Amino acid sequence: MIWNGVMPAITTCFDTNYAVDHKFMAEHCRWLLDNGCSGLVPLGSLGEGATLSFEEKIQILKTCFQAARGKAPVVGTISSLKTTEAVDLAKAAADAGCDALMVLPPYVYPGSWREMKAHVAAVIKATPLSCMLYNNPVAYVTDFLPEQIQELAQEFENLEAVKESSTDARRVSAILALLGERLEIFVGVDDMIVEGIAVGATGWIAGLANALPRESVELFNYAMTGDREKTFKLYHWFLPLLRMDTPPNFVQLIKLVQTELGMGNPRVRGPRLELADQELTQVQKAIRDSLRTRPNLSNMPAIPVAR
Amino acid sequence: MIWNGVMPAITTCFDTNYAVDHKFMAEHCRWLLDNGCSGLVPLGSLGEGATLSFEEKIQILKTCFQAARGKAPVVGTISSLKTTEAVDLAKAAADAGCDALMVLPPYVYPGSWREMKAHVAAVIKATPLSCMLYNNPVAYVTDFLPEQIQELAQEFENLEAVKESSTDARRVSAILALLGERLEIFVGVDDMIVEGIAVGATGWIAGLANALPRESVELFNYAMTGDREKTFKLYHWFLPLLRMDTPPNFVQLIKLVQTELGMGNPRVRGPRLELADQELTQVQKAIRDSLRTRPNLSNMPAIPVAR
Amino acid sequence: MIWNGVMPAITTCFDTNYAVDHKFMAEHCRWLLDNGCSGLVPLGSLGEGATLSFEEKIQILKTCFQAARGKAPVVGTISSLKTTEAVDLAKAAADAGCDALMVLPPYVYPGSWREMKAHVAAVIKATPLSCMLYNNPVAYVTDFLPEQIQELAQEFENLEAVKESSTDARRVSAILALLGERLEIFVGVDDMIVEGIAVGATGWIAGLANALPRESVELFNYAMTGDREKTFKLYHWFLPLLRMDTPPNFVQLIKLVQTELGMGNPRVRGPRLELADQELTQVQKAIRDSLRTRPNLSNMPAIPVAR
Amino acid sequence: MIWNGVMPAITTCFDTNYAVDHKFMAEHCRWLLDNGCSGLVPLGSLGEGATLSFEEKIQILKTCFQAARGKAPVVGTISSLKTTEAVDLAKAAADAGCDALMVLPPYVYPGSWREMKAHVAAVIKATPLSCMLYNNPVAYVTDFLPEQIQELAQEFENLEAVKESSTDARRVSAILALLGERLEIFVGVDDMIVEGIAVGATGWIAGLANALPRESVELFNYAMTGDREKTFKLYHWFLPLLRMDTPPNFVQLIKLVQTELGMGNPRVRGPRLELADQELTQVQKAIRDSLRTRPNLSNMPAIPVAR
Repeated sequence: MIWNGVMPAITTCFDTNYAVDHKFMAEHCRWLLDNGCSGLVPLGSLGEGATLSFEEKIQILKTCFQAARGKAPVVGTISSLKTTEAVDLAKAAADAGCDALMVLPPYVYPGSWREMKAHVAAVIKATPLSCMLYNNPVAYVTDFLPEQIQELAQEFENLEAVKESSTDARRVSAILALLGERLEIFVGVDDMIVEGIAVGATGWIAGLANALPRESVELFNYAMTGDREKTFKLYHWFLPLLRMDTPPNFVQLIKLVQTELGMGNPRVRGPRLELADQELTQVQKAIRDSLRTRPNLSNMPAIPVAR
Repeated sequence: MIWNGVMPAITTCFDTNYAVDHKFMAEHCRWLLDNGCSGLVPLGSLGEGATLSFEEKIQILKTCFQAARGKAPVVGTISSLKTTEAVDLAKAAADAGCDALMVLPPYVYPGSWREMKAHVAAVIKATPLSCMLYNNPVAYVTDFLPEQIQELAQEFENLEAVKESSTDARRVSAILALLGERLEIFVGVDDMIVEGIAVGATGWIAGLANALPRESVELFNYAMTGDREKTFKLYHWFLPLLRMDTPPNFVQLIKLVQTELGMGNPRVRGPRLELADQELTQVQKAIRDSLRTRPNLSNMPAIPVAR
Repeated sequence: MIWNGVMPAITTCFDTNYAVDHKFMAEHCRWLLDNGCSGLVPLGSLGEGATLSFEEKIQILKTCFQAARGKAPVVGTISSLKTTEAVDLAKAAADAGCDALMVLPPYVYPGSWREMKAHVAAVIKATPLSCMLYNNPVAYVTDFLPEQIQELAQEFENLEAVKESSTDARRVSAILALLGERLEIFVGVDDMIVEGIAVGATGWIAGLANALPRESVELFNYAMTGDREKTFKLYHWFLPLLRMDTPPNFVQLIKLVQTELGMGNPRVRGPRLELADQELTQVQKAIRDSLRTRPNLSNMPAIPVAR
Repeated sequence: MIWNGVMPAITTCFDTNYAVDHKFMAEHCRWLLDNGCSGLVPLGSLGEGATLSFEEKIQILKTCFQAARGKAPVVGTISSLKTTEAVDLAKAAADAGCDALMVLPPYVYPGSWREMKAHVAAVIKATPLSCMLYNNPVAYVTDFLPEQIQELAQEFENLEAVKESSTDARRVSAILALLGERLEIFVGVDDMIVEGIAVGATGWIAGLANALPRESVELFNYAMTGDREKTFKLYHWFLPLLRMDTPPNFVQLIKLVQTELGMGNPRVRGPRLELADQELTQVQKAIRDSLRTRPNLSNMPAIPVAR
């Protein structure tokens, strides 16, 4: 598994009955890959994984797998309130064709390191697939410290990457200082991508890429090649949108950006609600203000938006 | 529904295959009621609700209902990652014979008041059963403020109680000052029960009561009648044990106290793990030290421990 | 030293040149004692101690001492950024006639227990005066845990009281459970006074008492005698005002209440600024709304407001 | 004023009587500048400014000024509990020869933006000296947001730099995106220097530079020129030491590193205490382990350590 580049944590599209819209999702996946993304990460928080049944999850993985056609890896997100269910999901994800897994700590219970290790180890051991550990203490309380990540990396060969969403760029340096090239480090919060790459990250589990894949890929490439001027120019334009990846209602925000760009709809499943009233108007205005000054990207072949 | 007294948030007992041990649970329920508890609250955090399937939850409710034999209400805990599932669970709980519901905010997603209100309102409206709102910002981030509780109480007649687990006794005063006798206030953290009663709480969703129901009921009664001397004496003895109700691993701790008293076993489902090694030894010693100086309760008929 | 009753943390009154108005302060002190307060605590946070020079502090202590005329103790607040200065201040406070000292951890530096103990121990040892330790982790980060307070109480006989401002009523129980009657416990946040007394506190370092001493004394007495009905009625009326004791700008708020009642002016020293514009109007309205329904207190001799 | 390069927040050296050791400080200043530092920042937190009297502060500024001989700017730190004292100190610092000021929010009182703005504005307006705003919400609670920094920059021409110590590298990007080249951004936490430079910082208010100026300057230069390989190699070696700049007892830690390198002593003023016992031994071992693998710096003229 090559852990590298911009891999969108893809949103889950719902139809008017709030059932999963597989047709759109397949189209969305192809469009993301056509525009330079290097992988697909369904079922995450941004994919409203918490509201998807086991069976829905497997169907979505299959849809992504078929859309990717082997052109790019599909990374299934494994999260559950219960360890045995997480293990079952990992196995089913492998059967559904996933190339790799993104492994979360258990929701709701922020236990001791012994417990959190046991949970993620059970998932990592469940299949031979390459795994990425997802560290997000802001959302899940559990904080996988660099030393603990090292411990896992020493015990499990198929742990090959870590997604850092602590919002603290210093963590990237700390993991790299401890582990060198043993793991690939992915940035998991959009508005820290340049900071993270600057200290050694080589991948991006991306949010706004769902709506703006080419800008995301371009930013990633500028930052990786160290072109400071182009990086800053694009980053400073992009930041107001990229910051929509960090508040609790980031799913609603990112789906709104997709909607504005004709690539999706704003529907979310409860407990999330679509933005409404003044808040909706303000966010729409902010999105449109940003898009009005959208830069003209030239160094990639122009790919028409799918619809 | 009479919201009053000591209602244990009962633990879920597992057999050696980690299946629910209904036989023990029925016995446990009867023993709790025989020792003065005024209701049963299954499927909560202490009941490891997050690891129970929908079907397991309904079976446990039925077991509790049969054990209670109409002598005391069964309050089903309604929590889910997804609003529609929470509604389905509420309806199924009513069908299973529940007398009332304890309503949680959605796990994992700490949304806006509009969203959190929509979620709990959907559950409250799902059945005509009396409801208790559960406020626990420490565990669930969502914090139902007194003004918001007031708003819910005005809109939903069957919202009749609130469980306060913010650990801030001032919240009890604040709710009472705002709502008077409209709602009954239950304390949801064991080591704040005397503080809470002193400012107006009239019930206790209790943890250690799973192992020490008579001491819990006695403490509750002393505090309700304002017998300061007896209250303090019993409370100060009890506090080291009652504090086991507050750390993240409270399920393991309380199951250990039950085990020491011959009323249960320490088994938990992953991601929780049983305590081990030095930590286990230390906790066992602390429990035994407390039990060695267990007070002799005299003003209630002695009820033999079931096994 | 009798540690008991309602002791206002008195505000420092400034004249139009922002010099200390000793004449008013003497009058204020007498009025507070005439209306039932049992002691005076100058130089605290509410006294804007951080903006007072060493010499100003000593002059204020002298003014309080003369106003008290031996009728009630004066408790000097000892706080400093530097240990040696805190010791010097303690000695000078004793020389100025103080009956007791309230001992704060050092501002700004939240060090280890070894360091914080060394600092407060240096102050406690500096004079033979009775001392009250002030615990306020919200404002000063340093948190004196019950076990640490016990350690200090065992080493220093003249440590006779503790002021609890953690906002967690459970701390009162914890200290009492550990130390019994060795220390008197004072509540340091106005909106927790009833909760604190209910679990064993016997004193109140009070804020709103600067403006409403009789209501404060009455509430304290009701709570101490366990008259639940009268306590709740007065407390629920008083709470919107008592809560003005907890936000960072509590000095401005309490001085505004004093001003509304003709007992002081709103002037504060920078970095604090007087409230202005819409915020001022809102707070004034809230104060006036509360005062309009001010209860008629009857069981104390009526003492005319001084001006 | 050229805001650029590595400017140590210099420690304050005490003699055996805990008086300021001006002779050593002068020597230390010269040694820092000889080894590539571009300025001197006395009286900060690392300089134990909170324990220095007004007069001591002015004397230290004079010592630094004389030691710098115009070769490099002296930046006086202005912090006080009281606005008028901060203004007086700013004026006296200008008189003592300071080239610029580092402006802190008031200690202890974390007020509203209106209040915090008034405080720092009073200091900035007090002299025509170039000013650097110091943002450290971790230590001072007050958080100067990028939009607020912009507001200050628009009103005060002599505000020319900002020191970012929020530990969040994204703040550097946010300030730069908003303000472009209007302000120079300095990183204020040692273990974020590479992250900060990568997104636009051009200076470093440095801690470990007190003991290791050449390594600090070298790291800064590598990072500024974008030499990724050399930067990472030096940074990863340096990180265990650079992290000593962030805990509350950073003064003691950095003075210990100085002591190990023969450039200072470990004495601190109370409330700080020197490390002792096991903690001292562990830290000394960690320092010595790092120094044993100290890299051989070659691209700068070798400057002999002063003693």
